[in-house]
Amino acid sequence: MTIIYEAIGVIHSPFTETAGMPIQPKGALGISGHIEIFPQFVDGLKDLDGFSHIILLYHFHRVVEKRLRVTPFLDSTERGVFSTRAPVRPNSIGLSIVELQGIQDARLSIVNVDILDGTPLLDIKPCVPDFDQFLVTRTGWLDKTAPDAGKMTSDGRFQ
Amino acid sequence: MTIIYEAIGVIHSPFTETAGMPIQPKGALGISGHIEIFPQFVDGLKDLDGFSHIILLYHFHRVVEKRLRVTPFLDSTERGVFSTRAPVRPNSIGLSIVELQGIQDARLSIVNVDILDGTPLLDIKPCVPDFDQFLVTRTGWLDKTAPDAGKMTSDGRFQ
Repeated sequence: MTIIYEAIGVIHSPFTETAGMPIQPKGALGISGHIEIFPQFVDGLKDLDGFSHIILLYHFHRVVEKRLRVTPFLDSTERGVFSTRAPVRPNSIGLSIVELQGIQDARLSIVNVDILDGTPLLDIKPCVPDFDQFLVTRTGWLDKTAPDAGKMTSDGRFQ
Repeated sequence: MTIIYEAIGVIHSPFTETAGMPIQPKGALGISGHIEIFPQFVDGLKDLDGFSHIILLYHFHRVVEKRLRVTPFLDSTERGVFSTRAPVRPNSIGLSIVELQGIQDARLSIVNVDILDGTPLLDIKPCVPDFDQFLVTRTGWLDKTAPDAGKMTSDGRFQ
C-alpha cells in the first residue's frame, strides 16, 4: 500500500550538515530554529500557541539508503532499525518534541531543535503529557546509554 | 513536495468502526491488539522486544476529508487542526504509544490500543523517556480537559 503525503512547511535550524548535529532534542537544549508553514495550511495553526511543547513529524530528506539493521550512535552493536531512532528506516519519518516559543503568522519560533535545516515538515501535534507520558519500565539496549544522548553528536553515518 | 511511503504492516484491534472507539491510548487501557509486520521488514524488529512501550506512526486510512479547523471530542469550540489530534489533518498520520507485550516472528502483541482494525502501519520507534519526556508547562485548550480523554469515546465525526 502506497501512501502519499505533502510537506506542510519547512524547518529551519543552524544545522546544514548531518555530521556534528545533536542526536536528540535533549542534546539541542537552547538551540533555536523556526518553521515556515506554507500559506495554504496556516489556518490550521489556530490555538497552537497555547502549548509549550509540540510534536514535529518530518521527512528525513537527505536519507538515500534504507536499512533494517543499524549501529546506532549510542551503541557499538548492530540493532534492528525499529529499536532505534536512526533516520535510515523504511519510511524516513522523524519525530522531535520541541519547545514552542511563539507564532507569528506562518512562522513558528522553536527551541531545542535537533533537525537539519531545510527539512520538510509533515505534521504538528500538541504535546500533552496526559496523552503521551506512560510509565515506561524497560528501554532495552538504551537502558544504560539513553541519558547520554544529550552529550552525543552525529558523525554523518546515516547520510 | 510530495513524499511517498509504504505500509510496513497492519495493526489489528477490536475496533472495526470509528464510532465508540477510545480517543487516546489512555482510554484504551487493557485493550489488546496485534501488529502483523510484512515479511520484508521483519529483520528490523531485532532488539525491539527489550522496550516496554513503543511509538506507532500510522496512516488514518478511513479519513477522506481533510480540514484545517475541527471541533475536537474534548471541546465544543472550533480549533486549528494542528492544536488537536483529530485524524482529518493535511497528512493523515496518527501517533499512539502502546505497551509492547511480546514479539513472535512478524507478530507484535500490544496493549492499550486506540487504533482502528486494519490500519496501515508506517513506523515503529522505541519509547524512551530520556528522549521524549519534557517539562510541559502549557497545554492550551486542553489544560482542563486532557485528563478526561480516558473517559471519552469517538462519535465518528471524523470519518
